[in-house]
Amino acid sequence: MCELLGMSANVPTDICFSFTGLMQRGGNTGPHRDGWGITFYEGKGFRTFKDPNPSCKSRIAELVQEYPIKSCAVVSHIRQANRGGVCLENTHPFTRELWGRYWTFAHNGQLTDYQLLATGRFQPVGDTDSEMAFCWLLNQLEAKFSQRPTDPDELYGFMATCCDELRKLGVYNMLLSDGDDVVTYCTNNLHWITRRAPFGQASLIDEDVTIDFNQETTPNDVVTVIATQPLTNDENWHKMAVGEMNVFHFGEPIFNRVASK
Amino acid sequence: MCELLGMSANVPTDICFSFTGLMQRGGNTGPHRDGWGITFYEGKGFRTFKDPNPSCKSRIAELVQEYPIKSCAVVSHIRQANRGGVCLENTHPFTRELWGRYWTFAHNGQLTDYQLLATGRFQPVGDTDSEMAFCWLLNQLEAKFSQRPTDPDELYGFMATCCDELRKLGVYNMLLSDGDDVVTYCTNNLHWITRRAPFGQASLIDEDVTIDFNQETTPNDVVTVIATQPLTNDENWHKMAVGEMNVFHFGEPIFNRVASK
Repeated sequence: MCELLGMSANVPTDICFSFTGLMQRGGNTGPHRDGWGITFYEGKGFRTFKDPNPSCKSRIAELVQEYPIKSCAVVSHIRQANRGGVCLENTHPFTRELWGRYWTFAHNGQLTDYQLLATGRFQPVGDTDSEMAFCWLLNQLEAKFSQRPTDPDELYGFMATCCDELRKLGVYNMLLSDGDDVVTYCTNNLHWITRRAPFGQASLIDEDVTIDFNQETTPNDVVTVIATQPLTNDENWHKMAVGEMNVFHFGEPIFNRVASK
Repeated sequence: MCELLGMSANVPTDICFSFTGLMQRGGNTGPHRDGWGITFYEGKGFRTFKDPNPSCKSRIAELVQEYPIKSCAVVSHIRQANRGGVCLENTHPFTRELWGRYWTFAHNGQLTDYQLLATGRFQPVGDTDSEMAFCWLLNQLEAKFSQRPTDPDELYGFMATCCDELRKLGVYNMLLSDGDDVVTYCTNNLHWITRRAPFGQASLIDEDVTIDFNQETTPNDVVTVIATQPLTNDENWHKMAVGEMNVFHFGEPIFNRVASK
């Protein structure tokens, strides 16, 4: 298993607090020693930091924790390898261009028979089930829509049915973003929380760190954080249901669908 | 104008020495204040560090200088904006997947009528002439070859004619890599040097730094460095000709072609 961390915010926000908690799971409080990565969007552009080394020992992870890169959309992943070797081309997140935007993807879980997925022109570079699933998903989207649908329900309604197909192959927890929207799909473990005024305090589970968001935010800030497991022990995280997809647009939910049993 | 820096080596080599020289041109000894980026390949995977801020003031550039990431293929760029605003999506290098490999591109120069270039499925995300040219080039390659030709002369011979077309639109100096090969195309300013045993000393032009490569290398190392302008003042750099393409494969030249007048 791996751990996912995502953020969607209405103002550029640094994720140092949550990232600090997540990184401890990369070999210290968690077993995820097989690499980590984080993508920060700035407008339509993005920056990805990744390392096949354990995050708790990574010099680059230190930089990301100390150097607050502010972003409205973040996708992060720490890896415990199951499918595919430990190397840079197998390290999440993965980014590809579709419809003139960069889409960034991270997956938690394990799929079977993923070799049968048809990816068309989106050819995997590494050999993980995750990158195969991402390429298949992009190929499905491009085959269905020659350009991006203007109606989010049309786009994400179809994307949800594609994710349902992937869930049939095993455990498929997903984070996906184009910089404006952060998409989440849950098979078994995915939690989210939206922080907005009045802001309170929060304490990390994985490290002795407490933050007072009043000191860090303005009253208009809306910041949604998505994580495999709750990162704080004194806030009310929502657990996503099996087959639930949520889309957050600059912090606010714009799409929700739970697959029928 | 911008500055390009590339490296092709037969053993994973750090580029800190050359990068230190280049970064000084990002606002100190040079006018290139509009962002910088560097891509390091490790096998088929890659890591890109980029920043729209001047490299001479960039915290991330400091990390890259201090933290020796060893790679066999590097593409780097510092920018003085001409076409396209100063933002992350316009910051080189640009990376796209073709034939199951990541191709990374950086351009120095300025093109006219680039809006007319047909990019097919490779849609630009930013609004630079450079990304347009890259997308057009990939579209040409994919239209010509459904999969990668096994003969490098077939691939790079065709790529050279595509670059000749781009040169008709203005100044087109290019660095391109898939991690195994580093491709260079010259319109006016591109220099290269191959360092191999017996190694000597070299002194940076842009900063008071001298290195003794004997201390840094083994007798079997072959390291080719490509740069817009020579980075050292006590080595013999080769200047590329107008319309010259060179391809270096793990340090060694494997393809050369100069366009007929």
